[in-house]
Amino acid sequence: MASTTNPFSLSLSKNSADIFFRVPNPPSSVSLRSAFVSSGSNELSLSRGEKSVASASRVRSVRICASSAQVMDQSVSKTDSRAPVIVDVNLGDRSYPIYIGAGLLDQPHLLQRHVHGKRVLVVTNNTVGPIYLDKVTEALTKGNPNVSVESVILPDGEKYKDMDTLMKIFDKAIESRLDRRCTFVALGGGVIGDMCGYAAASFLRGVNFIQIPTTVMAQVDSSVGGKTGINHRLGKNLIGAFYQPQCVLIDTDTLNTLPDRELASGLAEVVKYGLIRDAEFFEWQEKNMQALMSRDPSALAYAIKRSCENKAEVVSLDEKEGGIRATLNLGHTFGHAIENGLGYGLWLHGEAVAAGMVMAVDMSRRLGWIDDSIVKRVHNILTEAKLPTAPAQTMTVEMFKSVMAVDKKVADGLLRLILLKGPLGNCVFTGDYDRKALDETLRAFCKS
Amino acid sequence: MASTTNPFSLSLSKNSADIFFRVPNPPSSVSLRSAFVSSGSNELSLSRGEKSVASASRVRSVRICASSAQVMDQSVSKTDSRAPVIVDVNLGDRSYPIYIGAGLLDQPHLLQRHVHGKRVLVVTNNTVGPIYLDKVTEALTKGNPNVSVESVILPDGEKYKDMDTLMKIFDKAIESRLDRRCTFVALGGGVIGDMCGYAAASFLRGVNFIQIPTTVMAQVDSSVGGKTGINHRLGKNLIGAFYQPQCVLIDTDTLNTLPDRELASGLAEVVKYGLIRDAEFFEWQEKNMQALMSRDPSALAYAIKRSCENKAEVVSLDEKEGGIRATLNLGHTFGHAIENGLGYGLWLHGEAVAAGMVMAVDMSRRLGWIDDSIVKRVHNILTEAKLPTAPAQTMTVEMFKSVMAVDKKVADGLLRLILLKGPLGNCVFTGDYDRKALDETLRAFCKS
Repeated sequence: MASTTNPFSLSLSKNSADIFFRVPNPPSSVSLRSAFVSSGSNELSLSRGEKSVASASRVRSVRICASSAQVMDQSVSKTDSRAPVIVDVNLGDRSYPIYIGAGLLDQPHLLQRHVHGKRVLVVTNNTVGPIYLDKVTEALTKGNPNVSVESVILPDGEKYKDMDTLMKIFDKAIESRLDRRCTFVALGGGVIGDMCGYAAASFLRGVNFIQIPTTVMAQVDSSVGGKTGINHRLGKNLIGAFYQPQCVLIDTDTLNTLPDRELASGLAEVVKYGLIRDAEFFEWQEKNMQALMSRDPSALAYAIKRSCENKAEVVSLDEKEGGIRATLNLGHTFGHAIENGLGYGLWLHGEAVAAGMVMAVDMSRRLGWIDDSIVKRVHNILTEAKLPTAPAQTMTVEMFKSVMAVDKKVADGLLRLILLKGPLGNCVFTGDYDRKALDETLRAFCKS
Repeated sequence: MASTTNPFSLSLSKNSADIFFRVPNPPSSVSLRSAFVSSGSNELSLSRGEKSVASASRVRSVRICASSAQVMDQSVSKTDSRAPVIVDVNLGDRSYPIYIGAGLLDQPHLLQRHVHGKRVLVVTNNTVGPIYLDKVTEALTKGNPNVSVESVILPDGEKYKDMDTLMKIFDKAIESRLDRRCTFVALGGGVIGDMCGYAAASFLRGVNFIQIPTTVMAQVDSSVGGKTGINHRLGKNLIGAFYQPQCVLIDTDTLNTLPDRELASGLAEVVKYGLIRDAEFFEWQEKNMQALMSRDPSALAYAIKRSCENKAEVVSLDEKEGGIRATLNLGHTFGHAIENGLGYGLWLHGEAVAAGMVMAVDMSRRLGWIDDSIVKRVHNILTEAKLPTAPAQTMTVEMFKSVMAVDKKVADGLLRLILLKGPLGNCVFTGDYDRKALDETLRAFCKS
């Protein structure tokens, strides 16, 4: 397993203590770390699917696992049902596990081993709190009477992801006299995770925190990787921090209470992983979208696990988004413009990302970088997931341009975009594209 | 130069890539790195003074320099007057230089080599801005027409160190469409440095920043070490980040416009370094306080340099305040209570710290940890600096206790304090003290 020259220029995080090997010929089997509470064997031998990073190079972390679609039943159903699957996010001394499984909130030790100090603040919202706050409080305190739990319940919705709402977390933490050894717990979707994480990064200049995502969107994307923050009236996530949690606990049972529209919204990010770097996963989704939409537990568990693996691998390579991590934003620049243009909360994040991905794919085709069949497959899979395939009719070219001008991916005035290029599963992050293609795409999707 | 066992338990920053040697017998001379624009020799041979860390152990970074009082004239006046003295803050890949000298704002290359990208946002206030903003803008752009400078001018004063004022920085940055490759420049005192630094840490999840401190307080303390943040109505600096600048540029000429009261406030922190770890520096101050108060340039330059060396050494050992860094807060817990109790801005920070140090010293004496002579010397030197030696008469025991309960140094409910112990220049950071002594000190300094 030797290091080889790679044609794709990667910006590795300077802070990461890990060294990643580029593997020209991936091993045919890898070890899946699993289930420290499992009574049986912890090792499953899985055949490894072919995946490709941009420019068709292969970059692998040796600890991160990818299983191909064919072994789905093996990886999910043959494990003790109470034992979590564990996906590691490798970031040196900021590494952490993602626990995935059913009934994990009934296993207090999973959470308690990551709680520092005696005081916990659970941050949740008025939708999720009434359903799961008591259960989480019990998981934090069962057999552990020294721990006391405070909570703050925020209004639900993207439009509350702002400084005023963030201040409510600080107010509660300070009024409760929490100190540096406390732990913040985010219980909810992406908005709660992002706000709680940024509050944890900033309270007393940084306290521990734990993510308990309760939506598909948060489970497959926003809870993993340490991006935290709030919106500004002029753009999404413009204020925040890179701040990693102690662990992410994904209890797939929490999806039982998730509205259909939220479920579909999360699947937009699942589709994204297939498009940017995992063609086999995309093909699996094409075959299993109906199972996902009908909440088949094993299909959902597999989609979450494989999404987390993709995300963990990318984040481990590029924590601070110097390069490859930006590819996770396929469709997001267009999508953020839609969310901002319509007013946060009218469209769900994944709905806007779905329309944004269609636009990015359209632009990629106009540039001659992908063939028509990919355009069609993207359209089909999003339609099957009941997701939008175009922005709202009220969006104008000018609305897109004004929001895209303040996108975080602008560098020295140049807007860089994630676009598909080559066979399915390949993308580029680039500012080197014909401006005409962008203009044509905007005009094609906007009436004015 | 071998590593030896140290009786004092140090929490080293896990992120630091540096290895520090403990030196039982410090070398009699060290190299002072200086003046990359100097035309002559860059090396001065200085005799090294005796300094001690808590418990009289000696911890040295081999790159950080300390010169003893006796060589003051040599270290300051024999250097090319245009060449900055450089103190390094060693934090692995977050290391940066502190430039100290007269006329440094007339040397554009010093700033320009640390500017990333083409866009700069200078954050200043309505006191400092009118005097130095044009000069700083010229220093940033002279011979460098590609760089454009925006500025935001905040109201002056500790009472504006809040979320509303912070948002003005974000508003300006976003309205100006600054991107990730921009640089924030803090031009002003500690309030501006702390707010600009926290804004830089949070804007787009982190952009570059530079500190240009214009008060003694900021030059000897707050601009060095990466502590950034804002106040909450219930306590000081409760919201913020550890975020290191690209460089700190201290142009001692900016002190020419500093009010006397601000000058004295900064000297409180200078006295602090002597008390907690540098007895020789304290003795030098006893002899030179009149020179400092009358703004003797070489005395001020020396006091700033030696203070920065002390701060840099402590920060290099413990960036995130896991242990020894907390000792820099001598008098600050009492002082924060005074600032909060009176309302931010009525007393300057250093004035409150001065009174707080007197209280900490009083408590140390009640515990039997220091002898009476130290109490007297502290009282004398602060009096000579025209600083308060007791809190305002309106402060009550209850006011102290309520603010101290939310201090960041509380851990699992226990308030840890920095107290002097042993000969001059030694201190401890501990929660292991007789509560009676704290109560007695509070009662001795409060009428009710």
